Amino acid sequence: MIVTEVATFYLSMPEVSDRADGTQDTFLVRLRTDTGLEGWGESDAPPLVSMACYWCPPSHSNIVPLSKALVGARLDSVEDLHRVRREAITRALDIQQVHHAFSAADIALWDLLGKRLEVPVYELLDGPELPPRPKQPYASSLFGATPDETRALATGRRAAGFRAAKFGWGPFGVDRTINLAHATAAREGLGPETRLFIDAGWAWGHDADQALAGTMDLADLNVSWLEEPLLPDAIEGYRALAQMRPAIPIAAGESSGSVRQAEDFVVNGGVNYLQIDAGRIGGITAAHAARRVAERNDASYVNHTFKSHLSLAAALHVFTCASSHEIVEYAVDGSPLSANLVHDPLLPAADGTISLREEPGLGVEVDRDTVRRYLTPVEVRVAGRVLELGAQEV
Amino acid sequence: MIVTEVATFYLSMPEVSDRADGTQDTFLVRLRTDTGLEGWGESDAPPLVSMACYWCPPSHSNIVPLSKALVGARLDSVEDLHRVRREAITRALDIQQVHHAFSAADIALWDLLGKRLEVPVYELLDGPELPPRPKQPYASSLFGATPDETRALATGRRAAGFRAAKFGWGPFGVDRTINLAHATAAREGLGPETRLFIDAGWAWGHDADQALAGTMDLADLNVSWLEEPLLPDAIEGYRALAQMRPAIPIAAGESSGSVRQAEDFVVNGGVNYLQIDAGRIGGITAAHAARRVAERNDASYVNHTFKSHLSLAAALHVFTCASSHEIVEYAVDGSPLSANLVHDPLLPAADGTISLREEPGLGVEVDRDTVRRYLTPVEVRVAGRVLELGAQEV
Repeated sequence: MIVTEVATFYLSMPEVSDRADGTQDTFLVRLRTDTGLEGWGESDAPPLVSMACYWCPPSHSNIVPLSKALVGARLDSVEDLHRVRREAITRALDIQQVHHAFSAADIALWDLLGKRLEVPVYELLDGPELPPRPKQPYASSLFGATPDETRALATGRRAAGFRAAKFGWGPFGVDRTINLAHATAAREGLGPETRLFIDAGWAWGHDADQALAGTMDLADLNVSWLEEPLLPDAIEGYRALAQMRPAIPIAAGESSGSVRQAEDFVVNGGVNYLQIDAGRIGGITAAHAARRVAERNDASYVNHTFKSHLSLAAALHVFTCASSHEIVEYAVDGSPLSANLVHDPLLPAADGTISLREEPGLGVEVDRDTVRRYLTPVEVRVAGRVLELGAQEV
Repeated sequence: MIVTEVATFYLSMPEVSDRADGTQDTFLVRLRTDTGLEGWGESDAPPLVSMACYWCPPSHSNIVPLSKALVGARLDSVEDLHRVRREAITRALDIQQVHHAFSAADIALWDLLGKRLEVPVYELLDGPELPPRPKQPYASSLFGATPDETRALATGRRAAGFRAAKFGWGPFGVDRTINLAHATAAREGLGPETRLFIDAGWAWGHDADQALAGTMDLADLNVSWLEEPLLPDAIEGYRALAQMRPAIPIAAGESSGSVRQAEDFVVNGGVNYLQIDAGRIGGITAAHAARRVAERNDASYVNHTFKSHLSLAAALHVFTCASSHEIVEYAVDGSPLSANLVHDPLLPAADGTISLREEPGLGVEVDRDTVRRYLTPVEVRVAGRVLELGAQEV
């Protein structure tokens, strides 16, 4: 089949606040083909900046907008998908935003190809031999303002049936007494059986020694990982920390905007859990490559997802067939835009696990009413002429 | 002084072709202050995508447009500059394009601060003890279509007074016979005294063994460096190549969009020459940090610049005081837009070297007539409302 139409959609809540809530707006790509099939994808990236990557006037041979390689592309096989992807990204290689922006198109291409070949995306990625496996979701939130609030939050997670929960940021930082009080409260609220993850929120900057001390403080609380104790660019700090063998596994990598950045976290930073956002690293293709990097280097792979269940489905296809990676980040809060973006969200089963459906493509269906409700029209004029922004109707 | 106004300008030649010529358009930032002083900077990045980073609606607490932290910022010291920069980038950290886009603002901040303190930027960077030093420019172009054309190009470079020249891309690739023919022709045309650099243009992808063989072929031609024998993300390939001790020094790094990416090339990729574009890595601040990384790891620093002399001046301030880094990339072709962007280009002295002027700030003055002539007006409406795009008049 041939891709005949590229549409890029900017969705937004009526009000966007300065909170750390990435579901207040979103960027979607829809690809249509001459067969009538369509595919959808979502990036975790600023909509207007990402849209510009698809439609900006070209600057030279390495700054060609992403829509150019997509319209008219043949898509009948995995090889076709890799070829289209390579061509689009290579011609846009001098656009730094390219991997974040292209993530949505890459996900839409996999959705389309799965529908075309009538198989779920995971089967295209990992072959028909390996069955998809349910994953254990962890509920993720900020620490409370006080240890009592954190304890209450944790109690609530357990009551809601979660067998794993993550707390982070907020009061967690350089004060080791405060850190220990909150982590202890979280453990108390969750009880001894529920897995506890802690997100340190870059608490120790580039300082591996301080980060090591921070892990020692938490060593008796059965913490399954300590996330981002250092800044995302402090790979040399992560390397030093790994060499000191911290008492708690280290997780990082959500910022990865390319496969090399993911590889850098694992190979040089020595992280134990590689956290990859398929909506940032360049889509399902790049996330799957990052998973392989993790496996070659004895690290576990886990998704980072804080968007809709369109993104969650994309994230799950990457590693659902890999039994060694058992945890899935599962956003429990989020805007109505995000909560209603698909008709058929991926809800926990009775045993608390999350699974993909055995349906062609991604296996979730975008709710056009939600897209229409939150659609934010964009019009751009460059040198007086209206810029072509692809298909507009939903 | 206080930054009172941010202006972002999209300049373009009337026609932009699909050639590998990055001077066909450009992205400028102008900052004005309550003292009447103004500073200018240029990014090597697509104008519309970069402009969106300054003015896009915010998405959440980590996607706040770059203009927000600039307008109203105090700028009286180097510490102020670092603070403003850190705030702008941290609040926009989930915009992948942030470093490319902010480069122009960072350069404009240094230009402003130098004017405010009445010293050249290099003195703010390296202190008053180290004098600026002239650098040896190399002329950079593609190989000819045939070895005879390459020989003629090289003869022309020598006749024009250049004591160093680089040839690359075009016919250079996997065919070792063709590579040797062109490299030999270049050496013949330059004569034995002129330094010869070769840009392999990613010829060997991720394959370090092939790249090693490629360097051996050229070992008798006194090649000063082989540039980008592998793809920019093939750091593990660069590492393997370095461990095999190639006969010719290896250069790479122009793609660096953050200090960590530069560090990755040097620390893990083991490159001998780190090539940094101050218009991509995040401006003078990030380029100077990358220079320090090179120095701590026994690598040489060299600029990558293929924009106007506004960019060339910015690039030179980063390392003009460092006697150990003696080469400067000097674009000899380029569009009228690029050639006329400053009144006072940095021309070679009688001995062929390039120097900065001892003037406050960057030491080059933007030609407003050129900005007006090539100005490409942009108008953006989001949800029916005209987006604020800062000051418009030149």
